[in-house]
Amino acid sequence: MGLRVAVLGLGEAGSLFARDLLAQGAEVAGYDPVPEKGVPGLLRAGSEAEAAAGSDLVLSVNWARVALEVAERVAPVLRPGQVYADLNTASPALKERIARCLAPTGALFADVALMSPVPGRGLRTPALAAGPGAEAYRALLAPLGAPVRVVGEEPGAAQARKLLRSVFFKGLAAAVGEALEGAQRLGLEEEIRKEIAQSLKEADEGLVERLVEGSRKHAQRRYEEMLAAAELLEGVGVEPLLARATAAWLRGLVK
Amino acid sequence: MGLRVAVLGLGEAGSLFARDLLAQGAEVAGYDPVPEKGVPGLLRAGSEAEAAAGSDLVLSVNWARVALEVAERVAPVLRPGQVYADLNTASPALKERIARCLAPTGALFADVALMSPVPGRGLRTPALAAGPGAEAYRALLAPLGAPVRVVGEEPGAAQARKLLRSVFFKGLAAAVGEALEGAQRLGLEEEIRKEIAQSLKEADEGLVERLVEGSRKHAQRRYEEMLAAAELLEGVGVEPLLARATAAWLRGLVK
Repeated sequence: MGLRVAVLGLGEAGSLFARDLLAQGAEVAGYDPVPEKGVPGLLRAGSEAEAAAGSDLVLSVNWARVALEVAERVAPVLRPGQVYADLNTASPALKERIARCLAPTGALFADVALMSPVPGRGLRTPALAAGPGAEAYRALLAPLGAPVRVVGEEPGAAQARKLLRSVFFKGLAAAVGEALEGAQRLGLEEEIRKEIAQSLKEADEGLVERLVEGSRKHAQRRYEEMLAAAELLEGVGVEPLLARATAAWLRGLVK
Repeated sequence: MGLRVAVLGLGEAGSLFARDLLAQGAEVAGYDPVPEKGVPGLLRAGSEAEAAAGSDLVLSVNWARVALEVAERVAPVLRPGQVYADLNTASPALKERIARCLAPTGALFADVALMSPVPGRGLRTPALAAGPGAEAYRALLAPLGAPVRVVGEEPGAAQARKLLRSVFFKGLAAAVGEALEGAQRLGLEEEIRKEIAQSLKEADEGLVERLVEGSRKHAQRRYEEMLAAAELLEGVGVEPLLARATAAWLRGLVK
C-alpha cells in the first residue's frame, strides 16, 4: 500500500509539495477553500476533513492565522497513529495550542519548519521537525527525498529555530533595504549597494563575534551614530524603522 | 616649515591621531576639557582657541553633541586658508550648521567621516571628506599616510555615506544580537550562532539582490513571520526591537 497524504492549503508551497508527493508515487488528496490551478493527479476533496480522513499524513500548509481553525476542523476525523504536520510559520505558542487541540485524537503532531523557500526545491526543501510526530514525519517523507531533521519533542522547538534565524536574516534584509532607500533618495544607491555587497562578500565566520563585541564596546558612540542616521533618513523622507530600532538596541547595551 | 595641527578632543581617536601626526613630524597642539593620559610630544593648550590659533589644520574629534559648540569657541581665532575638519559622527544637517557657523572666518570646512574604528589604524583609518575644505584636508594628510577620499563639495556628503553604511552594518549587528539573545534564553545560542556565522560566510555579492527581491515578493508572508518571531522573543523576555522594526518595514512593502 502506498502512502496517502492530505494536503490542506494548495497555495504555492502546498501545490509544490502535492506535485512532488504524486511524482514519488503517493496518493494525494488536497483541499483549498479557494479554487486554484490544479495539480495533475491530485484528488480534490470537498473539505479539509474529507481530505484528511484515512490519510497516513496530513500536511497543513496554510497561513499561520488559520492554522488552529484548520486543525479544529479536521480533528473529528483524525485517528491514533495518523501524523498531522503543521508547516505554517507560526509562533511556538501557536504550535503548542494546535498540538493541545489535536492531542485527544491520538494523532501524532509534528511542528515542521521549512528552512528555505519552497519554489525550486519542493519536497526537497530542508525542514526541521519537532513534537511527538516529528520522528514519524521524518520516517514517512525522508524516503521520498525530503531532508528532515528532528530537533526535539516539544511542539514549537522547530519553529523557534526558524524564527530566531529569521530575526537575523529578515533583519539583515530590512537593514539593507532601509539603507538603500535612503541612498536612493540621496542619489547614492549604486555606490551604497556596491559597498554593502562587498561587505557581505567579505563576511567571514569571525564576523559574528566582531559584531557582538563591537556593539558592546562602542555602544554609546554607536547609539549616537544611529540617532544621526535616523535623522538623516527622516530628512530625506524615509521612516527610520531599522535605524531607530538599532539605536534603541544599542542604548540597551550602554553600561 | 612643518605642518601645525590642532587636535580638539583627546579621547581615543584624538590621541591616536595626535600620536601619529607627531610621529610624521607635524607640530601638534591639543586640548581636551578632561585631563587624560598624555601623548608624548604633544603641546597641551589651555583652550580650544589657543590650540587652534595659527595652526594649518584643526581637527575636531569630539562627540557630535558638542561639535557645534567647539566650532563656535574656535571661530574667533580662525583665519582664511586654515582647514577646519570635523571628524565627529553627526547628521549631515549638523555638519551643515557647523559649516555655516565657520563660513564668515574664511577657514575651509571639511566634513570628515572615519570609515572604520581608529584603534589599530590611527591616522591610516580610511576616511571620506566633503565640503569646501575636503581637497585641502586630503592634500595636507595624504602625504602623511592618511587614506582620504573626497566625495563632494557639500558638507554632510561624507557623513551621509558613512551613516547609510551604518544603517546596514549596525542594523546587521543588532539583528544578530537580538537573535542570539533569544537563542540564549532558549538554550540554542551555540546552534544559532553557528548558523548565522555560516550564513555570513556563504554570503556573496548576489545576496543584496536576493534580499531586496525576496522581501518585496514575500512581504506579507514575512511580515506575519516576523510578528511570530516578535511573539517568540517576548515570550522569553527579550524586547523584540529589531523583529518589530523588521515586521513594520515588511508591512510597508506589502502591495
